[in-house]
Amino acid sequence: MANDLLRLVLAQINTTVGDLEGNRNKVAAALAEARALGADLVAFPELTIPGYPPEDLLLRRSFVEGNERALRSLGPETKGLTAVVGFAEAKDGQLHNAAAVFEDGELVGIYRKIHLPNYGVFDELRYFTPGQEVLVLDCAGFTVGLSICEDIWLADVPAAQALKGGAELLLNISASPYHAGKRAVRQELVSSRAQENLAWVALVNLVGGQDELVFDGNSLVCDHAGSIRASGRPFSEELIVVDIDRSAVQQARRAGREFAALAETAPTHLSLRVLRLAGPSSEKMKPEIVPTGVSPPLGEEEEIYLALVTGVRDYVRKNGFEKVVIGLSGGIDSALTAAIAADALGPENVTGVTMPSQFSSAGSISDSEELARNLGIKLLKIPIQEIYKAYLGELAPHFRGLPFDITEENLQARIRANLLMALSNKFGWLVLSTGNKSEISVGYCTIYGDMVGGYAVLKDVPKTYVYRLARWRNRKAGFSLIPEAILTKVPSAELRPNQTDQDTLPPYEVLDAIIEAYVEKDMSFREILALGYDPNVVRDVLRRIDAAEYKRRQAPPGVKITPRAYGKDRRMPITNRYREG
Amino acid sequence: MANDLLRLVLAQINTTVGDLEGNRNKVAAALAEARALGADLVAFPELTIPGYPPEDLLLRRSFVEGNERALRSLGPETKGLTAVVGFAEAKDGQLHNAAAVFEDGELVGIYRKIHLPNYGVFDELRYFTPGQEVLVLDCAGFTVGLSICEDIWLADVPAAQALKGGAELLLNISASPYHAGKRAVRQELVSSRAQENLAWVALVNLVGGQDELVFDGNSLVCDHAGSIRASGRPFSEELIVVDIDRSAVQQARRAGREFAALAETAPTHLSLRVLRLAGPSSEKMKPEIVPTGVSPPLGEEEEIYLALVTGVRDYVRKNGFEKVVIGLSGGIDSALTAAIAADALGPENVTGVTMPSQFSSAGSISDSEELARNLGIKLLKIPIQEIYKAYLGELAPHFRGLPFDITEENLQARIRANLLMALSNKFGWLVLSTGNKSEISVGYCTIYGDMVGGYAVLKDVPKTYVYRLARWRNRKAGFSLIPEAILTKVPSAELRPNQTDQDTLPPYEVLDAIIEAYVEKDMSFREILALGYDPNVVRDVLRRIDAAEYKRRQAPPGVKITPRAYGKDRRMPITNRYREG
Repeated sequence: MANDLLRLVLAQINTTVGDLEGNRNKVAAALAEARALGADLVAFPELTIPGYPPEDLLLRRSFVEGNERALRSLGPETKGLTAVVGFAEAKDGQLHNAAAVFEDGELVGIYRKIHLPNYGVFDELRYFTPGQEVLVLDCAGFTVGLSICEDIWLADVPAAQALKGGAELLLNISASPYHAGKRAVRQELVSSRAQENLAWVALVNLVGGQDELVFDGNSLVCDHAGSIRASGRPFSEELIVVDIDRSAVQQARRAGREFAALAETAPTHLSLRVLRLAGPSSEKMKPEIVPTGVSPPLGEEEEIYLALVTGVRDYVRKNGFEKVVIGLSGGIDSALTAAIAADALGPENVTGVTMPSQFSSAGSISDSEELARNLGIKLLKIPIQEIYKAYLGELAPHFRGLPFDITEENLQARIRANLLMALSNKFGWLVLSTGNKSEISVGYCTIYGDMVGGYAVLKDVPKTYVYRLARWRNRKAGFSLIPEAILTKVPSAELRPNQTDQDTLPPYEVLDAIIEAYVEKDMSFREILALGYDPNVVRDVLRRIDAAEYKRRQAPPGVKITPRAYGKDRRMPITNRYREG
Repeated sequence: MANDLLRLVLAQINTTVGDLEGNRNKVAAALAEARALGADLVAFPELTIPGYPPEDLLLRRSFVEGNERALRSLGPETKGLTAVVGFAEAKDGQLHNAAAVFEDGELVGIYRKIHLPNYGVFDELRYFTPGQEVLVLDCAGFTVGLSICEDIWLADVPAAQALKGGAELLLNISASPYHAGKRAVRQELVSSRAQENLAWVALVNLVGGQDELVFDGNSLVCDHAGSIRASGRPFSEELIVVDIDRSAVQQARRAGREFAALAETAPTHLSLRVLRLAGPSSEKMKPEIVPTGVSPPLGEEEEIYLALVTGVRDYVRKNGFEKVVIGLSGGIDSALTAAIAADALGPENVTGVTMPSQFSSAGSISDSEELARNLGIKLLKIPIQEIYKAYLGELAPHFRGLPFDITEENLQARIRANLLMALSNKFGWLVLSTGNKSEISVGYCTIYGDMVGGYAVLKDVPKTYVYRLARWRNRKAGFSLIPEAILTKVPSAELRPNQTDQDTLPPYEVLDAIIEAYVEKDMSFREILALGYDPNVVRDVLRRIDAAEYKRRQAPPGVKITPRAYGKDRRMPITNRYREG
């Protein structure tokens, strides 16, 4: 590689946690494809072999050994290439989040992640010991600084690579989870690091769903001036191919332009290791390629919708299911859930069930029928009145003289749950639950009722966004795929006569703003009041959020799309006497 | 404190997470009591003011500020005393797990925990920054090394306190959670540290339940020779009073006996700070006291039983409930659960419900009736046949031609769940679920069926232990409190004719041993085979454990009593293709 060009391939692949052999084979296939493209250097996402995040699988010695065997077996697949593959490395009784460097068939070096995130959804200090050494690969004169995910979110490792190691390309392998707007944040980061260090930056990101998380791909390549030069597609697998030209980097550096990164950001406690590689033969023939371009960012609704589709598809498929079943209430939440499921799995794999009671409006059935026709999904109808009456009959001796209350409302929701689970058990369909973030926040949902399911598609989607996504989907369809009646009716649980959500809750615009302030931004009662809301409303919403923790603890996982989702992103005690306001 | 005696009070109290004011007031009351006992130095458990563990409450600035205000308000309560109180300290944009030192009404110093556990149930690096300074209090010549929980589990901090700081007493404030046998482990630790450092060691531990955790108290005081001199009662609040005599320490040290702790274990990167205190006036009159003695350790069954009682009592009470309801199947699990609940809350606060079906044996009702009479709890009877028939009627058009299978079994379990939840909703009773660790491990339980409840009492108790605990409870009662028929019948879910657990599962002795090996010890398939089990049985059990992760994710919390419980102690992905064997 005596010349100034390095052909880089970022393999934006969709791995599966625990599938050591499958992930290994996916890497091998991508390497073969990259070789055909004339790649010099191929990089894979963080923890490629075990999948991300492997959680407590990492505590099993046999798992770590299996992942190391799978990694080493990749050697022969790297003939004629340099490849960077993520894995978990056991060394001296400790575990590292590591990247193996293969060159022309041999494992020649290992980098160990230095900055281990242990906040939000991340628990990396539970498993890993931080590395102590900044690594730069010297590929026959072309210098590449190698790092893993969090390492590039802080300034010190890149600064050490560029300032001390002379790195012309900063290559980062990531598993950076999605939330709305994350691509822009990552782009800003990559661009800043490039300019600070007068270096190319390439970040290869994981793609696909894993339990609560979706990884959006959106891999990025940026030149030393901070311009994005290539980007991976959102939410799909892709090999991104770019020829990295170091001449402009060298020119800028020779021109004496100062590194924006202050020398003091380069860490003093970390040593620098330079790994010298022979680099590919300079006679290597490279095919002409059309380098990957820059795909325009998606609109917010489309981006979130695709995240949800990806989360559903991968949860269902990676857990070995083909088909799903959804209770259709005639409301917007179940309608959007069904649309997402049909897009994710194909309408032939989705069954809707309408389960009317004496409290159901006429529309709740006819609107569901129209929805099912539009989506092309099957619709079953199972009325619940007779079952409900049977329960009331058996409970009558114990409830004598007591008025209808939330008990009878929940009873209906739980009858529907039992029916959905019966269909699930009999036919092997996974139940998708339909509750949105607004409901789940304030506990306006029935535990073991509408909360049941293997996956909660809208768990992190506030109600106001449910409407936006539904309207976007209809615009994309070019007609009212989700019937207009569903979009415009007054939200109601239909569990007692003339019930509406706003009997109990403030308008959703207000509710969602308070939830965002309290849950996502950790704002205090006073700070929320300063936004201009009624103290009684705010206090009531905060009380409801605190009191619903026990329900959320038993909720299915769902796709994280906000900066803070429920689940491992927000770990609140159930037993908790702290009250704001 | 010019003399050789220091009167130490360890305040083994039961705090509540988030109850800043309640915890503060509990500390104030204990201080008043300690003053009356002539205490020189009073110590409280780790994170006294916020409660332990406060989890993501710590991310709320308003919570941390409230905890600091509550702490500071304790100043006047410490007149005439030295007091050590745990709290969360915000400092320079970071948070510390801290201990405040008050002397005679003033806050005079703060120690910051150095070793932050981030494994098992612990997430302390999610919140806290490690301290960098070892602290020794010089109480008018009597030197006390102060540390927090994990700090004493490693050798370096105590060694620095004793070797560099000359500490004669190592005082550790802890929130050390229970598992069976933990007291002995802690006693071994304390004794070793004492001998290594030729110093007294006093460890004050939290007591009480918090969600999945129970803290067992069992505070310990040990002299420099390694002999336990006082211990706190298990599972109850207590002030432990001991006069610490330093003369023997000084004598041993003057005699030139070498510190067993090697000088090299004292950390070089940590600085030592000595906080000089005036100490209490030497004219202080101290009442004669009977110092706290050493309570003998409990037998294993009694210890675990008390842990379960404590967990249930505190979960129910701290969450504002008074009464509980339990489905009584006629089996051993629900019988033991009812006995524990009756002991924890009083029989007048426990209602059992028998819900017979056509598959129920005659004994399932009569045995439950006898149990309820023995325990003195109320028993309701709600048959489920009519409800079950109503479901089958509505499902018939969809299930036409399909045989009875697990669907119809689960249907029954979920009808019972719906009835229990209806009673819970109508009367405000918390549902206790009854599944044991063996069932929950292999998924031999119905999600939204027998798994429903606010608290899963036996979640971490293997079936073989369920029998041991039931027999122990009967021995303690002096009669068959849990009827003999329940103890001796063949375990069955009674969801189809002539069903027994062993149609599906290996004998419980085998099953529990495999679960312990795989779940608690992370042993591989090969390692488990080496214990002598049938490969097909082991493979089947491991598959079932892996496949049940989705059920466990939606399970209620329960008391941790083994070295590794489900919940935050074992964080496995649901989507997981890794398979052993």
